[in-house]
Amino acid sequence: MPRCVVTRRMHFNAAHRLFNPRVSDAENERIFGACSNPNYHGHNYNLDVSVEGDIDPVTGYVLDIARLKDIVTERLVRHLDHKNLNLDVPWFQDLNPTAENIAVVCWRVLAPAVAPARLAHIRLWETERNYVDYEGT
Amino acid sequence: MPRCVVTRRMHFNAAHRLFNPRVSDAENERIFGACSNPNYHGHNYNLDVSVEGDIDPVTGYVLDIARLKDIVTERLVRHLDHKNLNLDVPWFQDLNPTAENIAVVCWRVLAPAVAPARLAHIRLWETERNYVDYEGT
Amino acid sequence: MPRCVVTRRMHFNAAHRLFNPRVSDAENERIFGACSNPNYHGHNYNLDVSVEGDIDPVTGYVLDIARLKDIVTERLVRHLDHKNLNLDVPWFQDLNPTAENIAVVCWRVLAPAVAPARLAHIRLWETERNYVDYEGT
Amino acid sequence: MPRCVVTRRMHFNAAHRLFNPRVSDAENERIFGACSNPNYHGHNYNLDVSVEGDIDPVTGYVLDIARLKDIVTERLVRHLDHKNLNLDVPWFQDLNPTAENIAVVCWRVLAPAVAPARLAHIRLWETERNYVDYEGT
Amino acid sequence: MPRCVVTRRMHFNAAHRLFNPRVSDAENERIFGACSNPNYHGHNYNLDVSVEGDIDPVTGYVLDIARLKDIVTERLVRHLDHKNLNLDVPWFQDLNPTAENIAVVCWRVLAPAVAPARLAHIRLWETERNYVDYEGT
Amino acid sequence: MPRCVVTRRMHFNAAHRLFNPRVSDAENERIFGACSNPNYHGHNYNLDVSVEGDIDPVTGYVLDIARLKDIVTERLVRHLDHKNLNLDVPWFQDLNPTAENIAVVCWRVLAPAVAPARLAHIRLWETERNYVDYEGT
Repeated sequence: MPRCVVTRRMHFNAAHRLFNPRVSDAENERIFGACSNPNYHGHNYNLDVSVEGDIDPVTGYVLDIARLKDIVTERLVRHLDHKNLNLDVPWFQDLNPTAENIAVVCWRVLAPAVAPARLAHIRLWETERNYVDYEGT
Repeated sequence: MPRCVVTRRMHFNAAHRLFNPRVSDAENERIFGACSNPNYHGHNYNLDVSVEGDIDPVTGYVLDIARLKDIVTERLVRHLDHKNLNLDVPWFQDLNPTAENIAVVCWRVLAPAVAPARLAHIRLWETERNYVDYEGT
Repeated sequence: MPRCVVTRRMHFNAAHRLFNPRVSDAENERIFGACSNPNYHGHNYNLDVSVEGDIDPVTGYVLDIARLKDIVTERLVRHLDHKNLNLDVPWFQDLNPTAENIAVVCWRVLAPAVAPARLAHIRLWETERNYVDYEGT
Repeated sequence: MPRCVVTRRMHFNAAHRLFNPRVSDAENERIFGACSNPNYHGHNYNLDVSVEGDIDPVTGYVLDIARLKDIVTERLVRHLDHKNLNLDVPWFQDLNPTAENIAVVCWRVLAPAVAPARLAHIRLWETERNYVDYEGT
Repeated sequence: MPRCVVTRRMHFNAAHRLFNPRVSDAENERIFGACSNPNYHGHNYNLDVSVEGDIDPVTGYVLDIARLKDIVTERLVRHLDHKNLNLDVPWFQDLNPTAENIAVVCWRVLAPAVAPARLAHIRLWETERNYVDYEGT
Repeated sequence: MPRCVVTRRMHFNAAHRLFNPRVSDAENERIFGACSNPNYHGHNYNLDVSVEGDIDPVTGYVLDIARLKDIVTERLVRHLDHKNLNLDVPWFQDLNPTAENIAVVCWRVLAPAVAPARLAHIRLWETERNYVDYEGT
């Protein structure tokens, strides 16, 4: 069976600030500058979720992309969309919501959820010009 | 002299919530749903600023677009970027930061700032699929 | 009250062929070429729906864009998405589904549906490089 | 010689339906839902074709991208553009035209056609939010 | 007959420099800065050409967009694509190739070429963030 | 520590011609056609710069993307933007500025500049439809 990768682009809007509670406010300000604004700022995040597998000979699918969309919406997006990542989302209670850390969280939530397909790749777009790729390593 | 319109696309990231302090919390929740999350959410806003004028026969410009960019950055974007619109921006102290109202604020700030060119059009993109146009009327 | 225009981008996938049943097959072939393939071809259509109105002083909205999305989905998109425009959609039973005619149909369906807001503009993208604008005239 | 990958984005418009003739109509309906509409629907497909090779020291090219465009047009796109994949394209006579299977067909057609360059990657965009990657495995 | 506007997006790559031969080199440097580099720089221009007319009841077209594409290619794009606007294009022999002036030239070339359709609008994109609109006034 | 890849999209405008001084003018014309216009043409280049590393547990960053932007601007983009690659940029004094060769130059300049992060990937977009990937091999 040919083996390929299927990707669905999802999106969510969220507020965040970059802040490490284990260092001082002055240190946060020095490291993160405007991104550490105590009143938060926000983004339209795009998230490309890629799963890899053999093409099923009956369906011609690796994974029905409508089902992939439903899984990601239910397990991930509804917990992030129109939220404040620092205040509303338990995954970031003790984790600074940089694009890098958000990508890792997305991976950890989605990898078991898409089984038996294999989560192959996560790309998180924070802006049209900044994105992070993570493959679970 | 031919007369045309020159546009510069700008962008800023901000947090906001939709909230009208003159009605009850329950009414805000009913009208705005998830957009009224008390902890805020956010967007990557794109803003297309259009100015109209005769083409200057010496420069071939309506308005040097590098100068337009500087004006919009200085007068508008630096007050909005990486901010919480509700908490950090005086223009929204008593104004609900819907896309419509943000567009009107942008117009009022920019119209005098681009003179003697004429501000012709403002398009504010809240997401890749939602935008508002305002022409000062 | 300031008056502005709010736009929501919608999308649908459909098959069609360009064909005028009142002229001969040879004439259809001559006029429409590959676009007249009897077995159909198809497009990912994007549709920008723009409504104009005063900004409501209570909500800060011209029209809640979530409600606009619901109206367009219910009244228009669910009748077009994943359909064959020539065979499945009564609006095109006697009308050639060119981009121009699709735009006019969208207008006629949506204009009464968005009242009391005023439908201001329809932009139908047939491809990333071809689009049609219609304002009801 | 440095070794790199050169990509050309191509596009074609086509109708299709998802349908496996070896299972019942009811089963097709259950698996594919609206995508199995007997009258077809359609897409604007984008296809990113990537070839890998050493940079030729005389031309500075891996493969002249104008020539890559001509090869893909002649060998692949003219057989798919403005077609019904199920009815008009022999490659899908016995193969369900899911995005996965279309990507595999594109690979099999193009891999020998771009030699001696090596076909490195195929990305097929079915919509702006759904795409499939295939590398011949 | 309903009346609408049909747009085709075209593109061309060209080199240029901003330079007014009637003022001194120092003055050109002061006005145009890096854009006046004597060795030129360049752009991927996108050009949206919009024509307005009644929808023809036989064809369902305002103007066959394939024919519009051919007209613009033949009359305009082949004279600009892969050219140096200042040196290779007679239209700019005595005209500074700012985006504004290029838009006016496009209008003057295309307005008679698309008759009896009416040229309605020209949008010239110099970069993804800068564009000029011209309507022949 | 999780290991991921962070990308910043940069852009620059430049003129170039494809020309190998070691072969005859006729041969250049034969190989490169319109791309070899002696008066140059130009592009809006986009450059995606990707760096890989462990996520720093204090900052949550692989590399502060604002710093990545500054490094690429200072070391690379200010030498290319609004330049003629053949005439103004020493890196191409003896190297034909094809997209492939520009990508290799970008790599060689940036790889030491982003240390101790590892430069992982360069994608150079010459147009919206043509791009080159290079990973230093």
